[in-house]
Amino acid sequence: MTSHHDTGAKTVAEVGEFGLIRAVNENRRQPSSTLLGPGDDAALIATPDGRVVASTDVLVQGVHFRLDWSTPEQVGRKAVAVNLADVAAMGAVPTSVLVGLACPGDTPAAMITELADGMWAEAAAAGAGLVGGDTVQADQLMISVTALGDLRGRDPVTRAGARPGDIVAVCGRLGWAAAGLAVLHRGFRSPVSVVNAQRFPEPPYAAGPAAAEAGATAMIDVSDGLIADLGHIAEASEVGIDIRTDALDISHRLIEVGTALGADPLRWVLTGGEDHALAAAFPPFAELPEGWRRIGSVTMPGSGLTVDGEPYHDEGGWEHWR
Amino acid sequence: MTSHHDTGAKTVAEVGEFGLIRAVNENRRQPSSTLLGPGDDAALIATPDGRVVASTDVLVQGVHFRLDWSTPEQVGRKAVAVNLADVAAMGAVPTSVLVGLACPGDTPAAMITELADGMWAEAAAAGAGLVGGDTVQADQLMISVTALGDLRGRDPVTRAGARPGDIVAVCGRLGWAAAGLAVLHRGFRSPVSVVNAQRFPEPPYAAGPAAAEAGATAMIDVSDGLIADLGHIAEASEVGIDIRTDALDISHRLIEVGTALGADPLRWVLTGGEDHALAAAFPPFAELPEGWRRIGSVTMPGSGLTVDGEPYHDEGGWEHWR
Repeated sequence: MTSHHDTGAKTVAEVGEFGLIRAVNENRRQPSSTLLGPGDDAALIATPDGRVVASTDVLVQGVHFRLDWSTPEQVGRKAVAVNLADVAAMGAVPTSVLVGLACPGDTPAAMITELADGMWAEAAAAGAGLVGGDTVQADQLMISVTALGDLRGRDPVTRAGARPGDIVAVCGRLGWAAAGLAVLHRGFRSPVSVVNAQRFPEPPYAAGPAAAEAGATAMIDVSDGLIADLGHIAEASEVGIDIRTDALDISHRLIEVGTALGADPLRWVLTGGEDHALAAAFPPFAELPEGWRRIGSVTMPGSGLTVDGEPYHDEGGWEHWR
Repeated sequence: MTSHHDTGAKTVAEVGEFGLIRAVNENRRQPSSTLLGPGDDAALIATPDGRVVASTDVLVQGVHFRLDWSTPEQVGRKAVAVNLADVAAMGAVPTSVLVGLACPGDTPAAMITELADGMWAEAAAAGAGLVGGDTVQADQLMISVTALGDLRGRDPVTRAGARPGDIVAVCGRLGWAAAGLAVLHRGFRSPVSVVNAQRFPEPPYAAGPAAAEAGATAMIDVSDGLIADLGHIAEASEVGIDIRTDALDISHRLIEVGTALGADPLRWVLTGGEDHALAAAFPPFAELPEGWRRIGSVTMPGSGLTVDGEPYHDEGGWEHWR
């Protein structure tokens, strides 16, 4: 994929900062919202709405990805996807991405251009462009991505608007990345569909604005796990949430993998992070947009986060540092 | 400065991700442009102009700062200042900052809140707020900052608009950070004014929009050194630039330090980076805004970057990886 980049077998130290920036940005196609792309002190992006949605996430090698498990292109896709999912979870349409990249000087330049290929591919899939960034030297590969988006005149859908009686629904895969992680930890590399879900998420970007349009009262992207992230909505909205396990559509693929590894696929679905599905609350009689499926209800304040009406004692979820 | 944060002597691992985010954001005052601050999937910032200026820079411990030379508060100021200077160099008014922070789990939480104090102080000095971010674990302290700004209806001032005959002018200090670095490398800690210039820049934020208002044809912030950065303007504008050394107002403080260390203060002024002064081209008869001083002229294409009419053979400047 990188044969068009003239970096040969050189390291980033040999190619130099400006050569690297050139290699990462040449032959790329910016969306029309990019009024001024990379190459100046700053980028300029259209915000027709008069507001801009902005989110930053940092991925660190060995913590958020492993280069013996993922290709640089997959890591690039993941770094951009996790950020664009945050933008979509506000109900916004992604417009652009800025990338801060730190890596050792002896990193092959081709690795960075492959990483950039993945970033550009994922940004393009959401209609966004890479508009700027910075590359610096560090002991460890680290990727910081800031994603921007436009609400197209709608109110942002925060975590705080869910009301008792609302429908709770999700769009996108749940538990796949966790299943993939379990597979990789056992030293396997298949089934590929499950393993790839761990390598890079495929967030349903368009489902965020569609949910906002349909009147979603609260929304979040499932990065820490369904229970943990619905817990964030419950806390911010000061309500309870009950998940119905019979409404969780567990893929036969996850059941197969669970059986093979002696693991419970329901646990992956309830607690597995990194799939970046969207979860939202909708008014009781809302018509759910395409791809959204009901999985529970918003309950009264004080009733907490329950599964089939009972507290779930194996919370899982992912918090850094702990 | 951090006595109001309830983190005691704990490490970031002990405080946890959510505790850290709380400590960093509590008791802070957002500007009116922050429509939705930290705590949700993304922030929402007003962009009354219908466009947003965006820039990202990454600072790495041991590469861009040293904690035996600078306090965490000074590092925080620097991380934000270098980004806000990029926004100002487009002629924009800074509105907000997003921060991606990576550090080892055994980092004292108080260090991170001090870092945040510095970030908040610098952002506030420019009228901006910290609107979001991410904290993750890594082997090395790394700070990635994205700064956003508003052009207030003006065209962006890029590097590409300088024309032969234009005035070349600067606003802000030149050579101070380089002098401070020379002092620190010799193991000294004074004069404090010079050493502090290395610890954190004080970019003249308001001078960027003022220059745009006065008709600046090209602008850049001096991060790599005056010759290197004016070279970027010359290249992007396809012109030459001549700097007149008799117009460079070399502070007696730099002359003193140069004498003490046996170094040439003119070289610091011409090649020293990290002061984040602003350099710009103005039309021949423009009235320079307050604080701007003429240091040279834009010359014909092909004449290159000259000092007193001669090529300068000791380019200096700072390029990563090389």
